[in-house]
Amino acid sequence: MTYKLIDGKAISDQIKSEIAEEVKQMIANGQKQPHLAVIIVGHDGGSETYVAHKVKSCEQVGFKSTRIAFEDDVTEEVLLAEIDKLNRDPDIDGFIVQLPLPKHISEEKVIEAIDYRKDVDGFHPVNVGRMVIGLPCFVSATPSGILELLKRYDIPTSGKNCVVIGRSNIVGKPVALLMMQKAYPGDATVTVCHSRTKNLKEICLQADIIIAALGSPEFLKADMVKEGAVIIDVGTTRVPSSETKSGFRLKGDVAFEEVAPKASYITPVPGGVGPMTIISLLRNTLLAAKKTIY
Amino acid sequence: MTYKLIDGKAISDQIKSEIAEEVKQMIANGQKQPHLAVIIVGHDGGSETYVAHKVKSCEQVGFKSTRIAFEDDVTEEVLLAEIDKLNRDPDIDGFIVQLPLPKHISEEKVIEAIDYRKDVDGFHPVNVGRMVIGLPCFVSATPSGILELLKRYDIPTSGKNCVVIGRSNIVGKPVALLMMQKAYPGDATVTVCHSRTKNLKEICLQADIIIAALGSPEFLKADMVKEGAVIIDVGTTRVPSSETKSGFRLKGDVAFEEVAPKASYITPVPGGVGPMTIISLLRNTLLAAKKTIY
Repeated sequence: MTYKLIDGKAISDQIKSEIAEEVKQMIANGQKQPHLAVIIVGHDGGSETYVAHKVKSCEQVGFKSTRIAFEDDVTEEVLLAEIDKLNRDPDIDGFIVQLPLPKHISEEKVIEAIDYRKDVDGFHPVNVGRMVIGLPCFVSATPSGILELLKRYDIPTSGKNCVVIGRSNIVGKPVALLMMQKAYPGDATVTVCHSRTKNLKEICLQADIIIAALGSPEFLKADMVKEGAVIIDVGTTRVPSSETKSGFRLKGDVAFEEVAPKASYITPVPGGVGPMTIISLLRNTLLAAKKTIY
Repeated sequence: MTYKLIDGKAISDQIKSEIAEEVKQMIANGQKQPHLAVIIVGHDGGSETYVAHKVKSCEQVGFKSTRIAFEDDVTEEVLLAEIDKLNRDPDIDGFIVQLPLPKHISEEKVIEAIDYRKDVDGFHPVNVGRMVIGLPCFVSATPSGILELLKRYDIPTSGKNCVVIGRSNIVGKPVALLMMQKAYPGDATVTVCHSRTKNLKEICLQADIIIAALGSPEFLKADMVKEGAVIIDVGTTRVPSSETKSGFRLKGDVAFEEVAPKASYITPVPGGVGPMTIISLLRNTLLAAKKTIY
């Protein structure tokens, strides 16, 4: 089969231009510049890279951005006070707290402290609950990025068997809920598999669409995939590499070389789902600035 | 196969006794009597029966209950004002608004107006979202009743293939999420099927557990069920009947007579999932009174 590569980088660049155009119009109309704040705690390499990338993307689309950094010994109290300040600041349209947080700080408490109307990461229970019910809300980045890719490539989903591997709160569960909703993309028959699943290979072989989000490099092999399946790879595990400057490279959950020839569409890693996650954040911030949802 | 009937009525009576015992202890310890309020709008026959049953069940377990009735021409404004009053009333531990509501009133607005800490129906986005994330919350009645039945009958769920037929917000989606969570009951491989599903029979034949919640009488036939499957019937469609005083009887989504001989466990209708829904409401009210969750 000749597979088609789903180019998340290209789609992401295209959507960035669309957002930049809209921001330009907003400002020309005398509206306020959208403003995203990002809180980062400590010096985790991955987190610093992600946050730098988010700040840079804000610049690219014409958003104002504020980066607020704390050392990793910051108290929960101080962090919650900062969140409260951002909740009240009328210039801040949306903000996120980059995860993970140091162990002495409760991620649950932090997420619930964010005003759900500024929760552009879509992690607050109100946004999660509204997504389940099918109400307008901030959908979290990865699930929303996956749906956008399916949409931009016109991939049919109605009545398709969609297998989601992984049941995490930030990918597996929400993407499963979105894929089963009465909408496009959606209307799929969705199966959620995880570590306790016994007949995974058999289940995957019946899938028209596989969303692999378990975080295990090259887990999905060719013998688990039906000819013509659509493969969405959410995995981004850093593995050591002597070939890159950084000393590591990203590996997906799919054994790309062997799976691609059987697929109709497939996302690469990097350059597939990854670049889309930033798009969802930018889009949620734009929606917050325009007060479209709340 | 000799099937085992899942006796929801017996389990429900047993749990009522357990709750009544706990309430007696609470009052003996000088604690406040748990207090549930129920708002009913109009004179829908089904709703009036349900509400009467809820009020009676409160009596049976020693709760105080308040029934607040509005005519079906009540304005949304008046209804929301009553909700606000109940939100502020410290004697009311939990309350529900019996659905459906007349068309001129937004159910969404009504549900979101309820303080989630008193939302013992578990319909508020905060409770739905917390359920998805796996945080303590008020779980809605039917999903929680189904899990309780599986638990009381010691039915294994880990690694089992569970097929949910129906994707409603009050049954299909939440029960699917609960069955996939890392817990018992749960840890199942869950497939959600619905009107757009193409190969339903094939999918059902692979199921160890089938939860039928589509509201189509006797939809699930023997040829869709694997020998030894566990069958949970959530359907309660009223069909006309000359054999009952009321002039109708309840029909489940399962063709019981033909499916039962193939099942290992099966719930009857009535007397299966139905009686359990009231239990979840009582239990949520007790949790609210004890401030266990919020």
